Amino acid sequence: MNKVAVVMGSTSDLPVMQDAIDILKEFGLEVEVDIVSAHRTPEKLFDFSKNAHTRGIQAIIAGAGGAAHLPGMVASMSPLPVIGVPVKSSNSIDGWDSVLSILQMPGGVPVATVALNGAKNAGILAAQIIGASNGEILQKIIDYKEGLKTKVIEGAKSLNQ
Amino acid sequence: MNKVAVVMGSTSDLPVMQDAIDILKEFGLEVEVDIVSAHRTPEKLFDFSKNAHTRGIQAIIAGAGGAAHLPGMVASMSPLPVIGVPVKSSNSIDGWDSVLSILQMPGGVPVATVALNGAKNAGILAAQIIGASNGEILQKIIDYKEGLKTKVIEGAKSLNQ
Amino acid sequence: MNKVAVVMGSTSDLPVMQDAIDILKEFGLEVEVDIVSAHRTPEKLFDFSKNAHTRGIQAIIAGAGGAAHLPGMVASMSPLPVIGVPVKSSNSIDGWDSVLSILQMPGGVPVATVALNGAKNAGILAAQIIGASNGEILQKIIDYKEGLKTKVIEGAKSLNQ
Amino acid sequence: MNKVAVVMGSTSDLPVMQDAIDILKEFGLEVEVDIVSAHRTPEKLFDFSKNAHTRGIQAIIAGAGGAAHLPGMVASMSPLPVIGVPVKSSNSIDGWDSVLSILQMPGGVPVATVALNGAKNAGILAAQIIGASNGEILQKIIDYKEGLKTKVIEGAKSLNQ
Amino acid sequence: MNKVAVVMGSTSDLPVMQDAIDILKEFGLEVEVDIVSAHRTPEKLFDFSKNAHTRGIQAIIAGAGGAAHLPGMVASMSPLPVIGVPVKSSNSIDGWDSVLSILQMPGGVPVATVALNGAKNAGILAAQIIGASNGEILQKIIDYKEGLKTKVIEGAKSLNQ
Amino acid sequence: MNKVAVVMGSTSDLPVMQDAIDILKEFGLEVEVDIVSAHRTPEKLFDFSKNAHTRGIQAIIAGAGGAAHLPGMVASMSPLPVIGVPVKSSNSIDGWDSVLSILQMPGGVPVATVALNGAKNAGILAAQIIGASNGEILQKIIDYKEGLKTKVIEGAKSLNQ
Amino acid sequence: MNKVAVVMGSTSDLPVMQDAIDILKEFGLEVEVDIVSAHRTPEKLFDFSKNAHTRGIQAIIAGAGGAAHLPGMVASMSPLPVIGVPVKSSNSIDGWDSVLSILQMPGGVPVATVALNGAKNAGILAAQIIGASNGEILQKIIDYKEGLKTKVIEGAKSLNQ
Amino acid sequence: MNKVAVVMGSTSDLPVMQDAIDILKEFGLEVEVDIVSAHRTPEKLFDFSKNAHTRGIQAIIAGAGGAAHLPGMVASMSPLPVIGVPVKSSNSIDGWDSVLSILQMPGGVPVATVALNGAKNAGILAAQIIGASNGEILQKIIDYKEGLKTKVIEGAKSLNQ
Repeated sequence: MNKVAVVMGSTSDLPVMQDAIDILKEFGLEVEVDIVSAHRTPEKLFDFSKNAHTRGIQAIIAGAGGAAHLPGMVASMSPLPVIGVPVKSSNSIDGWDSVLSILQMPGGVPVATVALNGAKNAGILAAQIIGASNGEILQKIIDYKEGLKTKVIEGAKSLNQ
Repeated sequence: MNKVAVVMGSTSDLPVMQDAIDILKEFGLEVEVDIVSAHRTPEKLFDFSKNAHTRGIQAIIAGAGGAAHLPGMVASMSPLPVIGVPVKSSNSIDGWDSVLSILQMPGGVPVATVALNGAKNAGILAAQIIGASNGEILQKIIDYKEGLKTKVIEGAKSLNQ
Repeated sequence: MNKVAVVMGSTSDLPVMQDAIDILKEFGLEVEVDIVSAHRTPEKLFDFSKNAHTRGIQAIIAGAGGAAHLPGMVASMSPLPVIGVPVKSSNSIDGWDSVLSILQMPGGVPVATVALNGAKNAGILAAQIIGASNGEILQKIIDYKEGLKTKVIEGAKSLNQ
Repeated sequence: MNKVAVVMGSTSDLPVMQDAIDILKEFGLEVEVDIVSAHRTPEKLFDFSKNAHTRGIQAIIAGAGGAAHLPGMVASMSPLPVIGVPVKSSNSIDGWDSVLSILQMPGGVPVATVALNGAKNAGILAAQIIGASNGEILQKIIDYKEGLKTKVIEGAKSLNQ
Repeated sequence: MNKVAVVMGSTSDLPVMQDAIDILKEFGLEVEVDIVSAHRTPEKLFDFSKNAHTRGIQAIIAGAGGAAHLPGMVASMSPLPVIGVPVKSSNSIDGWDSVLSILQMPGGVPVATVALNGAKNAGILAAQIIGASNGEILQKIIDYKEGLKTKVIEGAKSLNQ
Repeated sequence: MNKVAVVMGSTSDLPVMQDAIDILKEFGLEVEVDIVSAHRTPEKLFDFSKNAHTRGIQAIIAGAGGAAHLPGMVASMSPLPVIGVPVKSSNSIDGWDSVLSILQMPGGVPVATVALNGAKNAGILAAQIIGASNGEILQKIIDYKEGLKTKVIEGAKSLNQ
Repeated sequence: MNKVAVVMGSTSDLPVMQDAIDILKEFGLEVEVDIVSAHRTPEKLFDFSKNAHTRGIQAIIAGAGGAAHLPGMVASMSPLPVIGVPVKSSNSIDGWDSVLSILQMPGGVPVATVALNGAKNAGILAAQIIGASNGEILQKIIDYKEGLKTKVIEGAKSLNQ
Repeated sequence: MNKVAVVMGSTSDLPVMQDAIDILKEFGLEVEVDIVSAHRTPEKLFDFSKNAHTRGIQAIIAGAGGAAHLPGMVASMSPLPVIGVPVKSSNSIDGWDSVLSILQMPGGVPVATVALNGAKNAGILAAQIIGASNGEILQKIIDYKEGLKTKVIEGAKSLNQ
């Protein structure tokens, strides 16, 4: 079964990151969730990052706020695609610090950054990454997008009634 | 063979986007390059986006500057993972417009955004996406990161001589 | 009768966009309202944009938030003047993303951008566009501005009583 | 004949604003050019703004930099659609002051703002405003956009040779 | 008697601008208060600005929000020192538009800008301007600053009890 | 004779601040120039600020860059109106630090802030402050503004030839 | 006993600055707390800054908001390490003014700046400064960081139950 | 002898960081210089951070640009005071990413941040940290600041000649 890891710097990030977990399950993917703090549990960060690909994980979603180093540090040690979710945490300056410290990675170590608090999109992106080599998941993505369309069309109808 | 598409809004984006093409070839991946302007060739945008996954492409890299709509519009019509490269073009306000109009996608339609002008990282990320389901490419990523390390260690040595 | 289209990316934009609809009706213009999502209903976006001018619409008002591609994409396919309303939606970074992804259009494809959440001004601007070739509407604009003046003068009087 | 006015705060804005003049002439429109400084020639500002619509002008393009008050002040006194061009002048803070002091007009007095230094787009927008009620100009806009498309297609071809 | 004018773009600015009125009265200065909207009452703006110095006013305080043109336009027509108060109004982007469109005036036409919502400081500054040539007011400023000091010292004492 | 002090944090600020000195002399005012560094010569800062008003100075212009504390600290100790010039020095982040650390003074201690590098306007403002109680200087301001107007009118003429 | 001073510009900063006091006491350090306003009590600022190192204080924590000059001015007169806490006070523009006016000090006069409202980290940093030459305090820092780790590990466990 | 470590993410940071090395030597402190990349040599980062305090280092200066994780990651593993230097590297968005990803550390893990490219101040701060417990170094700081004063006084003299 295809597996995605969702890690975050603090339990306080969970309300935001839950969206990633939910959509991944909706796509029928296995999800591993953990708290890994770059700044408070660096050894756990090392262990997690160096070994995730050895136990069947295919993509890692990492969320953090403020000076958000978790996604970039995971990316420095894992060969897997790492998706970063900038979290607008209570200590953040309107989210700019979270966004910039995840997005602006140096050459050689990419983090696939999504919108501020965009955990749902992180989950969809992880599914798309698996779908790149998996026709069944790819079809689920196609169906999901079809569903988005239907919802908008319905909304438009209600508007004109 | 694994294939990645690299599209950009204008030939003036090519000097930045070439880094993506080069690193993808270095990883032994097939690359399809094209100019697709969201604002000037919308029909080509539709054709490209709706069909890319049907001809073996596994990931799309899209670069654009200013009000950069290309990555998001490709993502709206393709089920594949789309990597967005904000280009600091001549008409951009220090790159902020390029970054925000690619990154801040609404729920349902993610774009995997990399750093401003970070085309090289976009290429590496595309390779990681393929590597998520392909042990050979995954190993190349591991080797590549090992190479980065070696270069830093060498640089440090020269410093202390 | 003169007709203006008001489209928006989501029903959640309606509370902001209603101001445009109201002022257009106040000016006696016909209004067509619809939900057109650049990212979720790209086919509808194409249909709408390519055909609006063929059924008597003279100006298009498009509102969206975050990575707001709707106004620019409509402008890429319609020969009509397109007025963009940056909406400060819940997923926006203080409105900056909405403003920049609508305003910073490349050469060749203008969007007439108004202030953040400035839907009322979008409606007035659409009336002015029609008034540019229509003396009756032009006179209504002159009267409307006279009315603004009167209100300020009244406010000033109450202050000094 | 259809006429558009192009005004700017200083002769130093001319290199940027010339793009508007050129494209308007390309569309076969009559252009009236003048220097009108909101801060140095307020009486001329009044005269110009109050009378432009009485001598056949159908749209006004106003460019200024820094604390750019010209577009908004013209809009306060003219019933015509006013297009504002934020100019990145030498005394501007990276263009942010020019953009915000033109864009963020209060309810009742819109300015149709285009991108920083986007004078070309201001000219196209003025043509579209006239085209909203003039089939011949509308057709020229359609042809112009077709030309943009052709150039991109040619560029893409050269890339693949 | 020394007189200062306090003008603002809208009655909605009064809660902020009242601080200027209060402190001016505290310094024993005569205050003239009025609503003058640059965008809605341009004729009143002209009248006010051109004549203020002829009826004994020595300094003008002007407050406005968003694309705040009032202070700069008053300054363009009055030889008096004009103090600008950027108001964080409901349509402002976090105050940045108000600040930049007041502060960044071109060479030749200064506006003495104070902090966002800093109407109290505008009042003190007006008093200082009069005090520059008036020993009695100067002494009141000295006493006022002494009072500030005393309040801090008292606050510090309560902290250490 | 009327006297204005011009102080700056470093000799490297002189090229910017010279504009203030020149225009003050043009208005026939006496100018005292000095280097006073808030951070490197705090005792001199105290001496200067506490005594300026006792030797006939009527207004103080203070220029500094980066974390620019000089204008605010002078204002904390002098009863005179203090005009702050944010200098875009080599260590500044695009001028934002200079602007904000001068403009955003707390209640009780205003600094009359002018545009980034706006030393010329600082000089004019100082003249206006003196002109508030001095008809001769007031007249010079009126004449100066008339001169600005003439130059724009001339520029406009050359444009239309 | 090792002593740290905690000063702030206003009693209104105390709710933020209390975190520094609390953590310093938790580390067993002596704390001296005072209100010192750069702008309202400049003489006290001088006294405090020039003498702190003579009465056994080893580090100074200074918190202020808006145009926050206190940390930099203390640093200009004390040879001790000064830690600056940018406070997001009510008159601040989202904290940017507080951050930039503390951080961007000129060469020669450093302020050790911590995150916006980061008073707790200021306290820890002061303890680390003392710990640099004091093995007992260094050990307490090591233990404290171990405690942070334990809390994250516990949080992670609860997540997986 | 007192020892300070200076580490940076890349040899390209050396031109900026050299200022720290130079001033530390000027203060007679021993300096250990190394390249430690958080993203490319994570194992070296761990080794360095966990052991620096065991070999006599009393303070660590870490410089990096873009998504600058080095200072924060060193701080997460070392009990020593860590001074962060935001470097305006070629891939940085005007330095904002470097500043925010170093400054905005979460509670528990401070980084003493200095100005953008402020390596010299980082060196002085490290000396002050040692001087907090070392009278000889403290005296050198006092002398250094006296020297700054003298230079300004000399500069002021040349101005008035």
